[in-house]
Amino acid sequence: MRIAYLGPKGSFSHQVAKATFPQGNLYGYATITEVMKAYERKEVAYSIVPVENSIEGSVHETLDYLFHQASIHAVAELVQPIKQQLLATEKGKRIEKIFSHPQALAQGKRYVEQQYPQAQLEVTASTAYAARFVAEHPEQPYAAIAPRSAAKEYGLEIIGQDIQEMPENYTRFWILGESSPNLSLLAHEKKISLALTLPDNLPGALYKALSAFAWRGIDLTKIESRPLKTALGEYFFILDIHAEKEALIDFAIEELTTMGITYKILGNYEVYRIKEQ
Amino acid sequence: MRIAYLGPKGSFSHQVAKATFPQGNLYGYATITEVMKAYERKEVAYSIVPVENSIEGSVHETLDYLFHQASIHAVAELVQPIKQQLLATEKGKRIEKIFSHPQALAQGKRYVEQQYPQAQLEVTASTAYAARFVAEHPEQPYAAIAPRSAAKEYGLEIIGQDIQEMPENYTRFWILGESSPNLSLLAHEKKISLALTLPDNLPGALYKALSAFAWRGIDLTKIESRPLKTALGEYFFILDIHAEKEALIDFAIEELTTMGITYKILGNYEVYRIKEQ
Repeated sequence: MRIAYLGPKGSFSHQVAKATFPQGNLYGYATITEVMKAYERKEVAYSIVPVENSIEGSVHETLDYLFHQASIHAVAELVQPIKQQLLATEKGKRIEKIFSHPQALAQGKRYVEQQYPQAQLEVTASTAYAARFVAEHPEQPYAAIAPRSAAKEYGLEIIGQDIQEMPENYTRFWILGESSPNLSLLAHEKKISLALTLPDNLPGALYKALSAFAWRGIDLTKIESRPLKTALGEYFFILDIHAEKEALIDFAIEELTTMGITYKILGNYEVYRIKEQ
Repeated sequence: MRIAYLGPKGSFSHQVAKATFPQGNLYGYATITEVMKAYERKEVAYSIVPVENSIEGSVHETLDYLFHQASIHAVAELVQPIKQQLLATEKGKRIEKIFSHPQALAQGKRYVEQQYPQAQLEVTASTAYAARFVAEHPEQPYAAIAPRSAAKEYGLEIIGQDIQEMPENYTRFWILGESSPNLSLLAHEKKISLALTLPDNLPGALYKALSAFAWRGIDLTKIESRPLKTALGEYFFILDIHAEKEALIDFAIEELTTMGITYKILGNYEVYRIKEQ
């Protein structure tokens, strides 16, 4: 089975793809949008994309594309722990430059300041690119902040372990596809994600939309506004709902429609936690 | 009066700083966090930071810092139209590489594909950096996507005018300071921005918080969740409120407190629109 993920090899997305589809043929794409388009073009059976990080928040490229352009759905959610490693071609090496994605550099800042106060920080497009770049320049005094799987992928040594500042760091990934995949992981909850567009931008409309869920005792786990891209101050709203009472949710959604609120289902999925690797 | 903005010169922030404080001594800082720290350290009387763009959404670096670390407030809001120009050292020049911030590259993509289909796109940290870099390499076949003010600042020619895809593109900027500055602009509304932390993450709590405003007829113009950075699924909420009925807002906030909801006032400000330059 063909699976698309955000490459290159050794990225957190790649780690999730391997944990979820150990028998799959995995194809890395350069951007999140390309990963989603791979599924739309039927190049793959499933696409895996990041949706939210516990520190950085939502991944707008994913949510905006699903709302504005795509008619594809999340059929499973994977929660991946994020642990950053400092990688180099050999242990004990002099390090003068450290490469990584800006968020990983920020997460490893305290460790780097203590251990390599003289090192220059250099931004790359992703953590896995940084690891690949360091592996390609063994003669240089370079290191990368990247996931453990990037060390294996590019033959690098872990010279600093779990260097991220925040111990609780997780990323939610969605599997986009036709129907729920058959995973050998244990699901621990079921959720539905909706995008609502209100008939006007009165606060009353949002309040009424939330009422439809609240009085039925339906738990929302997240609410977020994103710009409609029409004018400043116009938004659509992303709601994540605990899907324990599906019949009640159907009623609530029907009620929204009669109020003139339009909705798009972004996903209906089981949530799986991936163990640390 | 000393004013801090997000540099370098020629950035949209610089444009806002010049329009707002035409007599001010303007100091450009390298990052949004540095701009806010300049005010905290009393290096400046006011700091100007971007908070939200009509296409990209909230500027998380600004809002997260104000919520998590700062005890400073917005005392005015400026709304700046965002128009992107294609700049080069001379008209009619061969262009092989186009530099800009990723969002500006995305906004100018259609124009570039039509006019310069062979050009390579290169990412820079900001639009103004791109303009400065192009000005520093007049012998190279380079162009930058940047604001009009960057052309003036770095002596570049506008070779493509208003090339952004979305005609309606605005950015909200906040002026952080002790008290409302005396601006020679016309205010057109008054708003209050609050950050709420709910006693637990039950949806009921958010619904009750919104109720306190809704039944008093207080208009919310925006609601957004941001990660508390504690665990996946724990958020704080940013509410923008129309501040017409300030006494009612005081009652609503008092009611929140009795419900165990804690709040932080991020700003209490008049909103000004900056004319296109």
